[in-house]
Amino acid sequence: MAENLKFAVIGGGSWATAITKMLCVNLDEVYWYMRNESAIEHIQKYKHNPNYLSAVEFDTNKLKLTSDINEAVAYADYLIFAIPSAFVATELEKLTVPLKDKVIFSAIKGIVPETSMIVGEHFHFTYDIPYYNIGVISGPCHAEEVALERLSYLTIACGDATKAEIVGSKLAGDFIKVKITDDIIGTEYAAMLKNIYAIAAGIAHGLGYGDNFQSVLMSNAIREMKKFIKKVHKMKRNINDSAYLGDLLVTGYSVFSRNRTFGNMIGKGYTAKSAMLEMSMVSEGYYATKSAYKLNQGYGAKTPIIDAVYEILYEGKDAKATFKKLTDQLD
Amino acid sequence: MAENLKFAVIGGGSWATAITKMLCVNLDEVYWYMRNESAIEHIQKYKHNPNYLSAVEFDTNKLKLTSDINEAVAYADYLIFAIPSAFVATELEKLTVPLKDKVIFSAIKGIVPETSMIVGEHFHFTYDIPYYNIGVISGPCHAEEVALERLSYLTIACGDATKAEIVGSKLAGDFIKVKITDDIIGTEYAAMLKNIYAIAAGIAHGLGYGDNFQSVLMSNAIREMKKFIKKVHKMKRNINDSAYLGDLLVTGYSVFSRNRTFGNMIGKGYTAKSAMLEMSMVSEGYYATKSAYKLNQGYGAKTPIIDAVYEILYEGKDAKATFKKLTDQLD
Repeated sequence: MAENLKFAVIGGGSWATAITKMLCVNLDEVYWYMRNESAIEHIQKYKHNPNYLSAVEFDTNKLKLTSDINEAVAYADYLIFAIPSAFVATELEKLTVPLKDKVIFSAIKGIVPETSMIVGEHFHFTYDIPYYNIGVISGPCHAEEVALERLSYLTIACGDATKAEIVGSKLAGDFIKVKITDDIIGTEYAAMLKNIYAIAAGIAHGLGYGDNFQSVLMSNAIREMKKFIKKVHKMKRNINDSAYLGDLLVTGYSVFSRNRTFGNMIGKGYTAKSAMLEMSMVSEGYYATKSAYKLNQGYGAKTPIIDAVYEILYEGKDAKATFKKLTDQLD
Repeated sequence: MAENLKFAVIGGGSWATAITKMLCVNLDEVYWYMRNESAIEHIQKYKHNPNYLSAVEFDTNKLKLTSDINEAVAYADYLIFAIPSAFVATELEKLTVPLKDKVIFSAIKGIVPETSMIVGEHFHFTYDIPYYNIGVISGPCHAEEVALERLSYLTIACGDATKAEIVGSKLAGDFIKVKITDDIIGTEYAAMLKNIYAIAAGIAHGLGYGDNFQSVLMSNAIREMKKFIKKVHKMKRNINDSAYLGDLLVTGYSVFSRNRTFGNMIGKGYTAKSAMLEMSMVSEGYYATKSAYKLNQGYGAKTPIIDAVYEILYEGKDAKATFKKLTDQLD
């Protein structure tokens, strides 16, 4: 059965490119949707994505590239979404074919700004997809290291273990190990929250704090993340599993993380707006900060780090003074 | 009362230098023992330790420098030991004055090779110091960042909270925050075990594993550390507190860590002996690996990372094959 399932990847960025590479190891055919038509032509001609992970060579006999999202959705049993969360709503507006019976795995780490929901919730509430047909593909994983074929561990979360196993089996390979979990909510919130903590790490670095403080910040961040996720969805989970702590660390310690870079600029004195213009990139954590902060107004978890980042990004508070205050709340 | 207590620092390395700097903020007089007489002369003349953290300027009016450990021990009510664990036994053999009524705080992260005990245990069992007079000063803290006056958090552990508070109050300052705990055993074992995990991180790096794997390794390491310490001393502790997780991260992610550097050389193909000769430095984690492994023969905690490092360092197993096997045991 699982042998005949059809897969499509939605997105043309680095994470989508990495996932397509993984799928091509185990499948004879992969549908790949991206908006950028010239990128499609380039891949068809040169076997490489010109814009992301350009070192990865694709077997173009296996790829069905399309710039029509409806074609990809109509084709596939399993859809893997790997686009910035800020584009999810507009991409889905293009749909004319039904999404309802598809199995949808999200490799997106963020909040859909239009609905302030994590992606799984967005599919569930906006498109009526039952939770047993929704899954999450999470790290800890930099796409760049997948391209380099460095050993990486993925976490595949789905309420329906069989579907998680299926997706896992299509992604696994010599350099990819997969772990299955049923904690879809926790995995997705961890992936979203870690971007906020990466911004915090960046702000600290930009303000001149060093490695000693960074380790204290990360150690407080994982405790804060645990409290937050417990409020959202209480279940038995070990917050030190790779999907939570590992994902926090791979981002929080990465000098390549967009969120950390964004935070660093804030720490150096840029406003949020000018930092984003300068980077000409979307910082998932920017939107996540607002959503997490607002959500937590209802939950009431003690989240001094999220609060500090929110105050700096959305209330115009001075980064230096806000972090000075934050340091007294950490231990 | 606490105002009149006399403090001496034992050791001339970077951590001893950083601690002496901290004490000088809060005390009018600090005794400082180091073996190296020419370093003493240099400090007296130029106000800087020539060999470690040489940027730190001392108020030499406050310092009582001596190369006679007995002089320092006789003087002090509180002794802070900050020498490599491999030198503890030989340094203490020089003692002719009694140690018994002193309060001893160890800032040493390791195992005394002669007795295979952590430092607190060594003082307790070998010198009959009661546990209420033994404490631990732990990180997460690179001495180099203390020199740069970058905000750092110290953990002060002692069975007697008053003594921990006293030591904390003498170390705290504008750039040093202190946290008090009664988990002296857990804090000391964490400080010791993290060096083994830093070696593991180094080996992985030397073998070509990347940041994705490093985050998985650290996430497994903290779970392994929790299991190990629970076997040694079961009590309610949050392993994600800075004294445990923070200390693991500040070392495991540091490119300056001696233990990580040592591991990196092992991963690159050096033998343990040649790596140590090349570094001309003591890797605390080298001895810690043997002790932890042997200890765990009795405890039976599941410690695949410690086991792998032990097999490579002490059984001559091939690093590449051993880590390949290890990757299957992590998740």
